[in-house]
Amino acid sequence: MPTTVLFSARSERWDQYAPHLTAALDATGLDYRLVTEAAAEEVDYIIYAPNSGLDDFTPYTRCKAVLNLWAGVEDVVQNPTLTQPLARMVDDEGLTQGMVEWVAGHVLRHHLGTDRHVMGQDGVWRTGAPPLATERPVTVLGLGALGKACGQALARLGFPVTGWSRSPKQVDGVEALHGEEGLRDALARARILVLLLPLTAATENLLDARRIARLPEGAVVINPGRGALVDDDALIDALDRGRLAHATLDVFRTEPLPPEHPFWAHPKVTVTPHIASETRPASAARVIAENIRRGEAGEPLLHLVDRALGY
Amino acid sequence: MPTTVLFSARSERWDQYAPHLTAALDATGLDYRLVTEAAAEEVDYIIYAPNSGLDDFTPYTRCKAVLNLWAGVEDVVQNPTLTQPLARMVDDEGLTQGMVEWVAGHVLRHHLGTDRHVMGQDGVWRTGAPPLATERPVTVLGLGALGKACGQALARLGFPVTGWSRSPKQVDGVEALHGEEGLRDALARARILVLLLPLTAATENLLDARRIARLPEGAVVINPGRGALVDDDALIDALDRGRLAHATLDVFRTEPLPPEHPFWAHPKVTVTPHIASETRPASAARVIAENIRRGEAGEPLLHLVDRALGY
Repeated sequence: MPTTVLFSARSERWDQYAPHLTAALDATGLDYRLVTEAAAEEVDYIIYAPNSGLDDFTPYTRCKAVLNLWAGVEDVVQNPTLTQPLARMVDDEGLTQGMVEWVAGHVLRHHLGTDRHVMGQDGVWRTGAPPLATERPVTVLGLGALGKACGQALARLGFPVTGWSRSPKQVDGVEALHGEEGLRDALARARILVLLLPLTAATENLLDARRIARLPEGAVVINPGRGALVDDDALIDALDRGRLAHATLDVFRTEPLPPEHPFWAHPKVTVTPHIASETRPASAARVIAENIRRGEAGEPLLHLVDRALGY
Repeated sequence: MPTTVLFSARSERWDQYAPHLTAALDATGLDYRLVTEAAAEEVDYIIYAPNSGLDDFTPYTRCKAVLNLWAGVEDVVQNPTLTQPLARMVDDEGLTQGMVEWVAGHVLRHHLGTDRHVMGQDGVWRTGAPPLATERPVTVLGLGALGKACGQALARLGFPVTGWSRSPKQVDGVEALHGEEGLRDALARARILVLLLPLTAATENLLDARRIARLPEGAVVINPGRGALVDDDALIDALDRGRLAHATLDVFRTEPLPPEHPFWAHPKVTVTPHIASETRPASAARVIAENIRRGEAGEPLLHLVDRALGY
């Protein structure tokens, strides 16, 4: 009997992913069927995106794993009906590489003061080069696949990079701190702060008024992680008081960010529409097919979520 | 008798450089005097910047070398009175690193389409991530110290990088082409073109209408090299016709760029005020002191200019 793989995401995703999933699953040599509808008790694997309509996993009695299409699992990890193993998407080729490019681009943008030139073509020749990257410490909160790759890319560009994670980590080229005291130091050094933490009960509102107050005067906050890592009101207050120079935000508590949200009109906020990193269908399909191959071969699955930690 | 080092640049440069030069020359252990005025026949080395007022090198009969403060030597290399060895500034720490940061920042800015977000905070959520860097070929014309460092930094960020130079070169991570046929291929691949050639008779107007026509439709031109590498009128014409998408220019035939120059007001041109790379006093002073130490020790000087080639 073929392995049944249920694709549970909105229909426009099916159009994007079906050809890539078919190619990647064909390459595994498995006997499979890839479907968007199936009797629950026949399903071996669920490829899953939030908002797919599937929110009761109870009937999927034979399901060996739920394979999330995205890196963030906060919308599914707390689902009490989900007893199957849950894997996050770690798409180094697409998701991680895209994040590195977006983060490097926006860190350099703030470092070089590029906006002043892009928006101020007024015929006035203002000399004066910015300091070198070696004089601009950057802190990356979160040292998972994304934070690590971004920290190392920034270090290669010359920035002194401090990384922070809940538990101790070693990352070549990055000074890795951990724990509450490490967070204090990591914030105090951050001329530019990049948020790449997973969203959990412990990280929600991590960047609140008290922690913003630990950042150097005139620091810049860049958030391509999750919107709820930041206390929006505290951030706006710090920008209004001139305590922070700028915030570039790619993620929000509500997405799309409503047109009336104060972030849009704030002169010190740049909104980008959750484009820092997207799972790319071709490479994501290969990651999913590899996990299905592993599941069928009895090998351990990649990128399994720890339910207690929430990521 | 002490080695006499004449600092020949504008007085504001003296204020910037004197403490760093003193520290760097002290560190060589030489018996020296660093002066802004001296009898010409007593001068052993001239630290030189264009516009310093010194344009007749004939009286400096004992001078062992002219040490240029900047990377570009086009304003001095043709001076018929200059018979002394001439060294360019190759300030890896300051000049090269600053150039890498500026080039990486502006290549990523165009790659990510950042201007659209910086200038268009209109409350409209427009999804759609840019392609990955792997799908955006970049060509760097010029594979000297600056071009090589920029090409390699862009390759590390994921861009497929083609480099081009007059004569064959090998650069790890970069596909290095050369000669007239190589230039045709290098231009044809360039979704983003970075100009880092020295300015010589052979490179003046290198990017003219004919060569612009070889670039892919919608290419972006980034010029942090020398203004006269580009035929300004041909560039504006290609932007107006939509043949090129944008030009970001840091260098110009006349600097400061006059307020009435069409580049300032052109919606598809970003002017930056020759800030891509500046010699940094501390590191440049160490490069100059090292060349003086070498000269006094009878060792070959670093970064000597080939007068016939012009760089």
